[in-house]
Amino acid sequence: MSLSNRAAIVGVGTTRFGKLPGSTAWSLQAEAVRNALADAGLRKDDVDGLFTESQFSEPLLLHGHLLGRMLGLRPNFLSTQSLGGATACALVQHAAMAVAGGMCEIALCVYGDNAKTGPPPIFGLAQMGRGQADEIAYGMLGGPIMEARSAMRYMHEFGATHEMLGSVAVAFREHAALNPDAQYGDPLTMEEYLAAPFVAEPLRKFDCTVTTDGAVALILTSAERARDLAQAPVFVAGMGQAHNLDGLEDREHYTRFAGARSSERAYEMAGVGPDDVDTAQLYDCFTSTVLITLEDYGFCKKGEGGHFALDGELRLGGELPSNTDGGMLSGGNLTGWGQIAEAVRQLRGGCGERQVPDAEVAVVSGHGGFQAAHATLILTNEVR
Amino acid sequence: MSLSNRAAIVGVGTTRFGKLPGSTAWSLQAEAVRNALADAGLRKDDVDGLFTESQFSEPLLLHGHLLGRMLGLRPNFLSTQSLGGATACALVQHAAMAVAGGMCEIALCVYGDNAKTGPPPIFGLAQMGRGQADEIAYGMLGGPIMEARSAMRYMHEFGATHEMLGSVAVAFREHAALNPDAQYGDPLTMEEYLAAPFVAEPLRKFDCTVTTDGAVALILTSAERARDLAQAPVFVAGMGQAHNLDGLEDREHYTRFAGARSSERAYEMAGVGPDDVDTAQLYDCFTSTVLITLEDYGFCKKGEGGHFALDGELRLGGELPSNTDGGMLSGGNLTGWGQIAEAVRQLRGGCGERQVPDAEVAVVSGHGGFQAAHATLILTNEVR
Repeated sequence: MSLSNRAAIVGVGTTRFGKLPGSTAWSLQAEAVRNALADAGLRKDDVDGLFTESQFSEPLLLHGHLLGRMLGLRPNFLSTQSLGGATACALVQHAAMAVAGGMCEIALCVYGDNAKTGPPPIFGLAQMGRGQADEIAYGMLGGPIMEARSAMRYMHEFGATHEMLGSVAVAFREHAALNPDAQYGDPLTMEEYLAAPFVAEPLRKFDCTVTTDGAVALILTSAERARDLAQAPVFVAGMGQAHNLDGLEDREHYTRFAGARSSERAYEMAGVGPDDVDTAQLYDCFTSTVLITLEDYGFCKKGEGGHFALDGELRLGGELPSNTDGGMLSGGNLTGWGQIAEAVRQLRGGCGERQVPDAEVAVVSGHGGFQAAHATLILTNEVR
Repeated sequence: MSLSNRAAIVGVGTTRFGKLPGSTAWSLQAEAVRNALADAGLRKDDVDGLFTESQFSEPLLLHGHLLGRMLGLRPNFLSTQSLGGATACALVQHAAMAVAGGMCEIALCVYGDNAKTGPPPIFGLAQMGRGQADEIAYGMLGGPIMEARSAMRYMHEFGATHEMLGSVAVAFREHAALNPDAQYGDPLTMEEYLAAPFVAEPLRKFDCTVTTDGAVALILTSAERARDLAQAPVFVAGMGQAHNLDGLEDREHYTRFAGARSSERAYEMAGVGPDDVDTAQLYDCFTSTVLITLEDYGFCKKGEGGHFALDGELRLGGELPSNTDGGMLSGGNLTGWGQIAEAVRQLRGGCGERQVPDAEVAVVSGHGGFQAAHATLILTNEVR
C-alpha cells in the first residue's frame, strides 16, 4: 500500500520572521494557525489532528497537550516529535499517514518559537549533555563547533573552497531580498562573506543560520477532501526518513549524511528522480550542510556540491533554485518548517518575483539530531 | 483507506516486573528487545523502524535517538511520543501506520524504566509545573491527588462504593497470582483492601498502581509479512485516539474520559463492538480509572462500572476478564505497555492458568496526560 499522493497540504500560515518584540512562542503559533486556517478556508473546529514540535527555547514532552489546550482543540490524533531539524518533515509525514489512514481528517502541523526575543534556550545544553557526552568532554559544544568537523572534513576530502561555501550564503541572501517576510534581505557580497570572522573554522558568520522569532502552520487532509478546499492542493508524493544514530561517531557520516537513504526512499515512493525536481528547499543550518545534501540527494556527484553552488545553480534561474525564500541562513531558523511553507507556495505558483517558473516538483530536506536524523518530502502540484 | 488489519504484532518481549537491582532503564529495554526479536524469529538488523517513549525517570526529547544508538540501529522511521499513559497504544498505532504504508518493514516499539530502583523521577514535577499550574497552586500535586477528584466525583454522582473500587484491586491481584512475572502475587482480601490507609481520599493504597522496574518490547510488521514469521500474528484491527486537552478543567471529564470517543473510532475501524470483546487490558493507574473506562468503552452503562466489577465480571471466568496479568495495580506500572503484551499473549492462547478460553478479540486502553490523552487498540488473532 503506497502512501504516495494520499494526502495533500491545503493550508499554509506563517508569521513574519525576525525580531518580533512582544510575541511569545505561543502567540506566534496561534497567529500562524489562524493564517493557515484562513488560507485553507477551514475553521478551527474542523481540525481533528494535531502534530507539533516542542519549541527549542522551552522543551516540553507534553508540548502538544499544552499547545492544543491553548488553541482549544480536542483532536482525535496527537503527535509530538523531536528529531531535531528532521522534525518538520517527519511531522508532515505523520500527518499524511494519519489522514490517509482515516485516523483524523484535518491535520494541523505547527511550530513556532521566539528564540530571538525570548529567554535563552536551555534545551541544547541539557540534551547535548546526554547526546554527545564524549564530544562535550573535549569542548565540542554548540551547533557550529559540532558542524565544523563535517565542513572541515568535506573541504579536505573534496577540495571545496571558502568561496564554494560562500556561494550558498550569497545565493540565499539574494532570494531573501525578494521575500518581504525574511529577516535579512540586505545584499551580501562574496567579499563581505569572506571578510566575516570564523565562528568555528571553517564556518564563518554567514555560514551559520540566523535565530528568529516566528511560526509556521500547515494543514493537511486526504487527497479526496483536498480537491474541495480553497487552495489548489499540494500532494505529498514521496516521503522518506533515515537515521544514522551513531551520528558523528562514524567518520563516514562527516561528509555523507543519512539524506542519501532518506531521499532514495522518497524518490521511489514518488516515482521521480533528482532530474524531475524543479525547486529544492534544503535544510540549511550551515552552508556545508547544503553542499552535502545536494550530493546525498543526487543533484550532483559526491564532492561536486561546491562547484554546483559556485556555478550559480542554486540561484533563481539556475538548474535547481533552492531556498527561494532565503532559507534559514537569511530568513531565520524555524528548524526547517519554513522550507515546507516555501515549497508549497512555489508549487502554488504565487511567489511573485521569486517564483520558480512552472514549478511542479519540490523537494524538502530536514536534517538534525546531531546529524543523525534525516527526513525528506517530495511535493507536487499534480498527481503524476 | 482503512488501516484495519494492515499490520500485525509478531513479537513480544518482556522482562520480569518488580525490584530488579543492578538493572538500568537501558539494560531492561535491551533485554526486552532481545526477547521480542527471539520471539518473532527476527534479528536486530531486520529492524528498520523504532518507536519509543522516554522513560518516566529520565525524560529526554531525543530519547529515541539515544536508545537507537545504544541498540545499534539505523532505522528508516523513528517516532518518540509522550502522551502519558496513552503513549504505548499510540506508538503501536504509529508503527502500524508506518508498516502499512511502507515507511518501514519491521517496527520495534519499546519502553522500559527502573523507576523502582533508579533515581527518583523529576519528570512529573517539571511537566506538571506547566501542565497543571492552577492545580499545583492549590497543592494538587501527584497522580493520586489529581485522580482522587475524579474518583470522588464518580462515587458522588453514581453512588459507587469503596467495595466497588476494591473489587477491581482484588480481581487483578487474583490474576497476578497466576503470572510468575508479576510483582505482587500474594492474595489480597477485601478486608485488607478496606483496612489500608487512604493515599488521597477516596483512593486507598491498593487503588493505586505500583512502581516497577521492567521493560516491554513489541515488534510489528505488515499483515502480509506477518504470516511468514515464527508466531501466529495478532492483527491491529482497530485504532483510535481522542484527546480532551482541557482535561480536568472541564468537570464533565471527571467521570467521562476521552475513552468514549477513542473506543468508538477503534470499534468502527475494526467492525466490532463491546459485545465481541473477549478480554480487556485496561489502563489501571487507579481502580476508579478502570470503572470509568468500562463505561466509556460500552462494556456497561454509565454509572454501572462499579456494579460490573463487584459482580466479578472483570475476573477470569467473568463476562470480561480484564488485566489478566495483574495489570499495573499488581504487576507494575510500565505506563500501559504491559497491557499490550498481555493482550497479544492472550490472543496467542498461551497464557496457561490465566488464559481466557478462546480469546479472539482483545481491547487495550491507554489513558494519561492528566486524563487528557486516550488511545485504543483492538487486536484480533484472525482477520474477521
